Amino acid sequence: MNDDSRREFLKTSAAVGAALAVGAMAAGTATAADAPALRLAYGYQHAPVPCHSIRKASRDFREADPVSLENNYGGAVRALNTLRGRLAAAAADANTPPFVYTGLKREQLLRTGSVVLHEQYFAGLGGNGQAGSAMRSRIAASFGSYDAWEVEFRKIAQGLAGGSGWVMLGYNEALGILENHWMADHATAPAHTRPLLVLDMSEHAFHMDYGAAAARYIDAWFANLNWETVAARA
Amino acid sequence: MNDDSRREFLKTSAAVGAALAVGAMAAGTATAADAPALRLAYGYQHAPVPCHSIRKASRDFREADPVSLENNYGGAVRALNTLRGRLAAAAADANTPPFVYTGLKREQLLRTGSVVLHEQYFAGLGGNGQAGSAMRSRIAASFGSYDAWEVEFRKIAQGLAGGSGWVMLGYNEALGILENHWMADHATAPAHTRPLLVLDMSEHAFHMDYGAAAARYIDAWFANLNWETVAARA
Amino acid sequence: MNDDSRREFLKTSAAVGAALAVGAMAAGTATAADAPALRLAYGYQHAPVPCHSIRKASRDFREADPVSLENNYGGAVRALNTLRGRLAAAAADANTPPFVYTGLKREQLLRTGSVVLHEQYFAGLGGNGQAGSAMRSRIAASFGSYDAWEVEFRKIAQGLAGGSGWVMLGYNEALGILENHWMADHATAPAHTRPLLVLDMSEHAFHMDYGAAAARYIDAWFANLNWETVAARA
Amino acid sequence: MNDDSRREFLKTSAAVGAALAVGAMAAGTATAADAPALRLAYGYQHAPVPCHSIRKASRDFREADPVSLENNYGGAVRALNTLRGRLAAAAADANTPPFVYTGLKREQLLRTGSVVLHEQYFAGLGGNGQAGSAMRSRIAASFGSYDAWEVEFRKIAQGLAGGSGWVMLGYNEALGILENHWMADHATAPAHTRPLLVLDMSEHAFHMDYGAAAARYIDAWFANLNWETVAARA
Repeated sequence: MNDDSRREFLKTSAAVGAALAVGAMAAGTATAADAPALRLAYGYQHAPVPCHSIRKASRDFREADPVSLENNYGGAVRALNTLRGRLAAAAADANTPPFVYTGLKREQLLRTGSVVLHEQYFAGLGGNGQAGSAMRSRIAASFGSYDAWEVEFRKIAQGLAGGSGWVMLGYNEALGILENHWMADHATAPAHTRPLLVLDMSEHAFHMDYGAAAARYIDAWFANLNWETVAARA
Repeated sequence: MNDDSRREFLKTSAAVGAALAVGAMAAGTATAADAPALRLAYGYQHAPVPCHSIRKASRDFREADPVSLENNYGGAVRALNTLRGRLAAAAADANTPPFVYTGLKREQLLRTGSVVLHEQYFAGLGGNGQAGSAMRSRIAASFGSYDAWEVEFRKIAQGLAGGSGWVMLGYNEALGILENHWMADHATAPAHTRPLLVLDMSEHAFHMDYGAAAARYIDAWFANLNWETVAARA
Repeated sequence: MNDDSRREFLKTSAAVGAALAVGAMAAGTATAADAPALRLAYGYQHAPVPCHSIRKASRDFREADPVSLENNYGGAVRALNTLRGRLAAAAADANTPPFVYTGLKREQLLRTGSVVLHEQYFAGLGGNGQAGSAMRSRIAASFGSYDAWEVEFRKIAQGLAGGSGWVMLGYNEALGILENHWMADHATAPAHTRPLLVLDMSEHAFHMDYGAAAARYIDAWFANLNWETVAARA
Repeated sequence: MNDDSRREFLKTSAAVGAALAVGAMAAGTATAADAPALRLAYGYQHAPVPCHSIRKASRDFREADPVSLENNYGGAVRALNTLRGRLAAAAADANTPPFVYTGLKREQLLRTGSVVLHEQYFAGLGGNGQAGSAMRSRIAASFGSYDAWEVEFRKIAQGLAGGSGWVMLGYNEALGILENHWMADHATAPAHTRPLLVLDMSEHAFHMDYGAAAARYIDAWFANLNWETVAARA
């Protein structure tokens, strides 16, 4: 922190501390009835969504990985909720150097991605794997054919199979284009993109049931896709 | 590529090649009149948006960096347009291993982020830096106060100042929350988030005019913000 | 690729093609007797080291994860060997844009890290977990005490437990300092640092046997450390 | 932090706090006479090395970027020195969750890389750009020819030109192989590799003098390489 930024920070930090205290008081666990805009940057506490039960109930998935997935997702929710308090304290402390603060922000971004993407992964399951004709046409219009889309999607998934990460079919709101994306971790994502479909390639999503045989996990995922929820987001 | 995935790939690659050829024929440089859904995953060619002229015309920015920014943005557009052709060829070649394909996908993601974020950065400039009362209230409702928001935003920017990256004020559509985010590079982003405001902390955005004095660049950026375009996205 | 770099590249690419062809002919699977300096940047083919049998034979590790680890390590070796051929072809092709080439280089770096780190992880096992007094003293001299070192090492491992990555105790040859490092993936590492001890926090290293209970895996790893191999590298 | 890890941490944290206090007392700014092994993981304070004067004195580099480089390098040294104190405090606090601690460790790794790599970049300059015959032969033995090496090195540099990062010619001590590596940021590196030559592709290294014309900067760097220092590290 150079002299200029320290000076500026000291000027505002007292006011910030007071503002954050108000924020913390107003916060609470969100419910469906909350108006989104009232969720607090420093105070919001996320309640885990029980949609992982969808995967547990899906054909072709056995018991081991759903439990592991649930633990992993639950851990991300708890970490994210703790991080907000840490961020509020660090932001209100005039001695926090920017490079210490960004360490916390990276962890927040990572857990935010984990929570959002796991919830969309869970919500996309529980179906029979058959895409309706409208979605097939829409995909074909972008990728040349539905099969060409699936080939690319599977290839990206296989390329991540030895590590971890996500594959996303997303609509880029800024460029107006429907594309598949490789995402190396929870903090990697295409900016300003609405996910239609996400596949979790973390080993906790398949390793206990399928080991290194990622292709069989990907098959099971395709076979249990709920294309109605996909279409609802498209 | 294991035997299973190679076999599956060979089955579909002939069809894919044909589909992509059709896609390539149908493609062309997009215009404002294009229906977004028709933009092709492998064939779309992005036309650079001339909004960087907004920064050139802004008070408090001198000439050197806008030129550098334009070169940088233009390079990302050209790279992205080239990458689509490379991806189409690699996807249609049955011998492309997944880990080679994901190398291309990472570069595509990186350039997609660069194009999207630079365009939003340019579009957010050209104003007088005064946020309207509606935006101030909305920000205060999330961050405790408008000042608390600005303190965090500046601190993240300072934490990135020795390297590169972006700061984003974004609305997370999945969690219903307005937050600032640290983004280490063009491929780092919060998933499913609509950007309201992005600040380019790449050295090409400020180094030629401000050197290592990032705080003065951040001041200039705040002073030239066009809060009407921000409000229009909110 | 701008005009300047393209021109320069065209000048040298014929010579490069010839040189790489010679390299490819001279290459072969390396054996222990190879002089290191003769291993070819584009032609070297790595032979998997059978040291993963050490983990299989270790107390406190069951059967499932060693098999998974071996598959994962073997896949990295195969990918790396394939990538060298792809790099040689791309380097010799005057039409390869730099941003396509760097996609391949990232994948090479990732697999190089996977091979090197897995081999050191395997080689560090098979012992009784008791550090000798020389290593305890050396660690205590850097960290204040042996226990302080272990507390930090475990905390880093726990911080990676929900995702993947490595923890390294390494000697930084440039700064002359013995430190623990957090490494997010195979391509993250401290520059110019000799690893003494590496812990694999990839889920394939523990998930099948321990699920999300990373702490028990870390206990098992500490209990089976071979401190004599650690001391030999120190 | 789950119950198990919290319990374990509480057991040892009192001892850790005492040990770190001793470490902090023994620490001080290092001098060339310090025995490397006594440098303290939590207490060592790095003194900036004045080797950046080498670049200032080099033909073909003008004044602007060396100053910017020095600021950037100096900032990394100061941040790293501050981070050690933050890490000691966080490690000694039983309430520090692992995911908060790893945020600090990432920032430490990033600054450690910045310090090490900048110092090697500076030390590699000040020469006439002519590699001696021994180094030319050694490089040719790995890459097929010296020219093939240079073509790959330049291509990697061009691929990083729109963002930031490093190119390294390094000897992988574990695999016994001399290779070029793409490094996306200060925290990206090949594990267990001794750098012979590093090129800084951060925009602060060239933007003020060369703008987006990275190829001319790379030319200037090659023309001023001190191959004697490279050979001394080989």
